[in-house]
Formats: sequence, C-alpha cells, structure tokens
Amino acid sequence: MDVIANYYVESEWQIEKAARSIAAEQSTGTWTSVSTSQKGSGLDARVIKAEGNFCEIAFPEELFEPLNFPQYLSVIAGNLFGLGAIENVRLLDVEFPGKLVKMHKGPRFGIEDARKILGVHDRPLVGTIIKPKVGLSPKRTAEVAFDAAMGGLDLIKDDETLANQKFCPIEERIELVMEKLYRVEEATGKKVFYAVNVTTGARDIVERAEKVAELGANMVMVDVLTAGFDALAALAQEIKLPIHVHRTMHGAITRNRKHGIAMLPLARLVRMAGGTNLHTGSYKGKMDRAKEENDACRDALRQDWHGLKKVFPVASGGIFPANVAENLEGYGKDCIVQAGGGVHGHPGGSTDGAAAMVQAVEAWVEGMSIDDYANEHRELKEAIEYWGRNPQIEY
Amino acid sequence: MDVIANYYVESEWQIEKAARSIAAEQSTGTWTSVSTSQKGSGLDARVIKAEGNFCEIAFPEELFEPLNFPQYLSVIAGNLFGLGAIENVRLLDVEFPGKLVKMHKGPRFGIEDARKILGVHDRPLVGTIIKPKVGLSPKRTAEVAFDAAMGGLDLIKDDETLANQKFCPIEERIELVMEKLYRVEEATGKKVFYAVNVTTGARDIVERAEKVAELGANMVMVDVLTAGFDALAALAQEIKLPIHVHRTMHGAITRNRKHGIAMLPLARLVRMAGGTNLHTGSYKGKMDRAKEENDACRDALRQDWHGLKKVFPVASGGIFPANVAENLEGYGKDCIVQAGGGVHGHPGGSTDGAAAMVQAVEAWVEGMSIDDYANEHRELKEAIEYWGRNPQIEY
Repeated sequence: MDVIANYYVESEWQIEKAARSIAAEQSTGTWTSVSTSQKGSGLDARVIKAEGNFCEIAFPEELFEPLNFPQYLSVIAGNLFGLGAIENVRLLDVEFPGKLVKMHKGPRFGIEDARKILGVHDRPLVGTIIKPKVGLSPKRTAEVAFDAAMGGLDLIKDDETLANQKFCPIEERIELVMEKLYRVEEATGKKVFYAVNVTTGARDIVERAEKVAELGANMVMVDVLTAGFDALAALAQEIKLPIHVHRTMHGAITRNRKHGIAMLPLARLVRMAGGTNLHTGSYKGKMDRAKEENDACRDALRQDWHGLKKVFPVASGGIFPANVAENLEGYGKDCIVQAGGGVHGHPGGSTDGAAAMVQAVEAWVEGMSIDDYANEHRELKEAIEYWGRNPQIEY
Repeated sequence: MDVIANYYVESEWQIEKAARSIAAEQSTGTWTSVSTSQKGSGLDARVIKAEGNFCEIAFPEELFEPLNFPQYLSVIAGNLFGLGAIENVRLLDVEFPGKLVKMHKGPRFGIEDARKILGVHDRPLVGTIIKPKVGLSPKRTAEVAFDAAMGGLDLIKDDETLANQKFCPIEERIELVMEKLYRVEEATGKKVFYAVNVTTGARDIVERAEKVAELGANMVMVDVLTAGFDALAALAQEIKLPIHVHRTMHGAITRNRKHGIAMLPLARLVRMAGGTNLHTGSYKGKMDRAKEENDACRDALRQDWHGLKKVFPVASGGIFPANVAENLEGYGKDCIVQAGGGVHGHPGGSTDGAAAMVQAVEAWVEGMSIDDYANEHRELKEAIEYWGRNPQIEY
C-alpha cells in the first residue's frame, strides 16, 4: 500500500519533471545518477498524476517508520520545499493507508466522550480564552475563569503562550481555577472544561500533564506545531484527559496558498496523534481564512476514518456573538466556537459576555435570527449594541 | 531585559498599527478592549521601531518560560502569522538576552571538539550523504560508507528520511557501518564520523541514541524541525556524542522571503539547543538560497555568543567538486561541505568521488585553481570531465 500525497507546484520545469524530482528527492533518487542506485528496489516514489500545477505522488508504505511522526513529515514534507527549480510547492493533502492509520490509537477522548462529560449533546460547544493572553496572576486567572463559567459556557482555555512562567505558575493556576469551577458546578450543576496549557518539550510534557491531572485538571492543552506531534501522541497515550490542540505558528506554514503545508494534512496527523479539539480556523473573524480549507479540515476531523474517534474543530480568533452564526453555518453542530475578546470585552464583563456567546449559539440552534433572540436575552442584546455586526479591530 | 524580535511586514494597516497588533496579540492584548486588561502590567510587548516594511518588537523576558523552546516560538513566531489584516509577516531575527541564552548549555561538542576528534584542523570538513537516500540494506549502506570513507572524507551521514525502517534497521546499520569505519581507520589512520539518524519523537529519541551509542556510534543526527528543538536539547544533554542537525521541512517555513521564519532565528535556537553541525544552505547547488541569509546564519553559529560553543554550518544539496570553491568562499574554513550525488555519482564510484571532493577542498585551501589542482589529481580531473562546471540536473 502507498501513502498518497498531493501537491500544488510552480516550477521552471514541466510539471512532469517537477513531480519526478519530488518523487526522486523524497525516496531513492538525487540530481545525478549514482553508482549505488536502488531504482527499481520497490522503494521508489512514483508520480501518479501530473497536470497543470498539480501532482500526486505515491510513496511506498515501507518508506515510513510506523508511529514516527517526524519521519512521516521528512518524507511527504521535507527537502522538496527547498528545491531551487521548484519555486513554490504546497502539500495539499495526504492519504495514509488504513493499516498505517490503525497503528495509531487516535483520540482517547473524541467528540462523543467530551459531550458525555459535559452533558451537552444538542448544540455546538462554547469556549473562551482567558484574556488578556498573559499577565494575570493565578488568582486573577481563576476569577476570570469563574466569571466566564458562570455565563454558562463549556470550555475555558489558557492562552497558547501561557505555559509555566513565574507570573502565573501552572500548579497554582490549575488548583485555583479548578476550585472555582467546582464552585460553579455546585451553583449551576454545569461542568466546564479548563484546558490548561502543558506545552513544553516532549521530554517533560507527560510529567507536567500528570502533575496537573493530579491537581484536578479535566483537560490539557498543547501547542502541537511547536511541541511536536509526538508530544500530543504522548499525552493521548499517557494522560486520561481530553486534549485541546492549538496550532500556533501554523500561519508560518499554512497561510501561503502556493507554498508550504495546508492545514488539512496537519489536521489528519492531529487526529492520528490523538487530539480531542483542534483549532481549524474561523469562517469569519480576525484571522486569515479560506472557506474550502476549513471545510476540508472539518470533514477530515469528523468523517468515519478507520475507527479513530472524532475530533472537534474549533473556530476562534475575533469571534463575537454577531459572527457566531456564520461560523456555525460552516462547522455545524459538532464544533466549538471560542471567543476571547468577544467574551471578556462585553460591556457587562465576562459573565455577560459568556452568556451572550451561548445565546448566540442557541439562536442558531433554534433557527432564530440573532436580533429576534436578542430581544429576549439582555446579554446578547448588549453585545450587539456594543460591537455592532463586524468586529471593530482596535489595537 | 527584553527579547527583541525583528519582522518584515506587509499589511493593509500602517506599519505602526500592524506592529502594535503583533505586540498586542503576542502579549497582553487582543482585538477589543477587555475588562480584564493587564496593559501596564509590565508584560506588554512594545514596538521599538516601525518603519517601511520593518518593525522591531521588545518582549519582556518574563513572558518566556526558560528552556521551553515551544513556548519561545509561541511568543515570537505564533499567532501573528495568521492575522487577517497582515498579509505577510516574516520573523527575520531574534535577540535573546544573555541571561536567557546562558541558561542553555548549547553544544556539548562544538567545532573545536569535533576537529579534535578527527584530528583535522586546517581545512573545511568534507561530508557525504549515503545515496540513494533510502533503499539500501544495512550491509550495502556499510559498503557505501566504507567506499566513501576510503576516499578520505570526514563525515558520512544518513539521509534525513532514514530512521528505523524495516529495510534498514538502525541497530544493524550502526553496527555494520561502524565496523567498516574501524577498518578504514586501521587502514588509513583516519577517523570518520558517521551521523546516524536517530530522529523519532522526543519521548524515544534519547533511548534510541543511547542504544546506538552503545553500539559504537560516534555522532548522531536529528531532523530538528520535525522532531522539535527539545529533541535536540535532550540529545545534547543526555548523549555524549556530537550532533548533526538537519533542517528538513525548513523550506516550508523559511523559503518565502516575505512570510514565515528566516533561517537565522532557527539557527540561533539550534545553537542554544546544542547542535554541533547545522545545515544552513549552499552558496551554489540545487537548493534555493540567498547569500545574505547564509552569511547571517554562518555568523550566528560561529560568533562569540555568551560562552556557547561554536557550530559548523553545513553546505549541502547539489554540491559537487566544481562548486566547492564558491561554497567555501561563502563559509570559510570552519564549515562542512557535503555532497551526495557529487560523491556517489562520480564515474569511478564513491571512493573516487570522495577523494575528488577532498581534493576540491584542498585546492581552495591552497589557493589553487581547481583546474591546476586537477592536473595533479586524477579523481578531481575525472569529476570535472564528467560533470563539467554546473550540475546537470537530471531527474
């Protein structure tokens, strides 16, 4: 069986030669014929299609070391990006054979497991990022988390840059936040996830996650592109908690539509490695986006796939009540919409902001216009009055 | 003290606002004002310069968790790449305060240590990649290594995609290669490094490296961008061997001159994490390149820097005898020139190919033209007759 990779290519060479150069460089060849040649050894990558600016290359499964994520990337997304004669090349998608996919356990906690823990089955989940990104003490972090949770949302996450800095040590933070969330549960009956960012080198990440698990964490978070897919896989295998996966730094790799790596193959790797939630971009917000790429990631995370559990796509970045519906039209019910400024920037504070976000989601679920729903819900009405329909980006 | 990062920016916004948005997004701000604001907390990133398409941002040191490489990246190279209103942004350089740099041990083996092991002090080192990239059995790999080593070169490395696949298991490979290299040393008195690729997830990489060290390895190799900087740091701290650092996948991130991350900041991180050799690109070859970026990496790896040992820049990709001099003009004496096809594609085979590469280096050291030197050296003469002056890229 082969691993099939699809590329967009711009080259001074004809597409056939460009595709052949990628196949050779990433398997048994090089720029000149060598006395040691193994062409015909059964390990040659083969060009299956080459047309216009697109090519499809089949890599024999034997080229890959099972479970070695860095090695997978070195074959399908390695030196080929640097070839002088190929001006632009973008890995668009990759299809792994079922046998290889099944060697990965995938998510320990999938969409259904996370819903069961929360007891929320019939609507998209609502999340928030603690804002400001950084600068709050553990005590203030816990207070902000409490306020947001009291608004009725489902998930609170750390900022992707918050790890274990002195101004907010992780152990103190998790203890204080979880204590507040227990109080919310007592008061409202509602469970709320707190995705605590355990990102650090893969050597230490499991130990850090074990520590926060002991201290009561109900979800961990990892920056998968900076920490590595193996760090995620380690968490999924060793830690009995759902995992929120952030993709910070992805824009350096995914944003150019002609060069680099599309989000889709990265999303597939995240599902193999075991994420529960994955940031996949918004349909409307402050971050760059492409509808068709969001659609593709959404489908890759939720389609039936060799028995691996399903993963929540997460919309975030400049989300606020007025653009919730557009994001839900894209992602449908099984997603998480997440707002930071769109919660904590509410004129009534974080509790009202969280409530307004939940109301915006409810309006969509009930098929009501946000204005009609706002007439019956104060927090939502205030959000719309305050921000209008488009986020006014202030900086 | 601050961490100072420099960016190239293209935005619909004025450079001041664009720079402010990066500073805010990567520290204490967001797109709207929030009730929980910590502006003025001392953790705000500040715009120091913003002019034309360039800006310089100072991040307070407290934002960084010492030794946490993923977290460093999440601050200086995180979400900023995705901001919708910033069409292109490239991290050009980063300056870490000495206190932070010194918390990293850097290379256990630097340039001087590697030279001492080899007993080669007065010329650039010559390396080869076993070719074909993949497909050889351990036995054939060892034979090719033997042939190349007999040509007098200094370093032989695995392909970046070769890890521990079934067609060439790493333990069998290291045993057979090292056995051959001992025979070379007996015959010629010359030590040769074999950089065995131990790349795998950071959880397992130290164990894999320990295993090959027990089996006689004298150098290990890691694909730093796919395995993570922490995998490299783990090797440098735990394994008493020099480390050859490959940068496969870098082109997805570094190649676009307007967007992504330049090689320079990555090279700084590699030195902090502890590489001995780092692929930094060629001045002439088959891969894309920019002279000024190579120059900057070269200087960053070799300048005096808070007491950290120095790192060899490695030129590779389409190198063969006729373009050695141009690469050495760029890198000077303290570098490694590495050829794969340029060794094993020699009409006389790998031994002659290795000898020709060493001769090309010697010619440069002695200030002789390659043609004059070739008149006295058969292998070099044959290489020039066979390939001419420019690599004919064949695929």
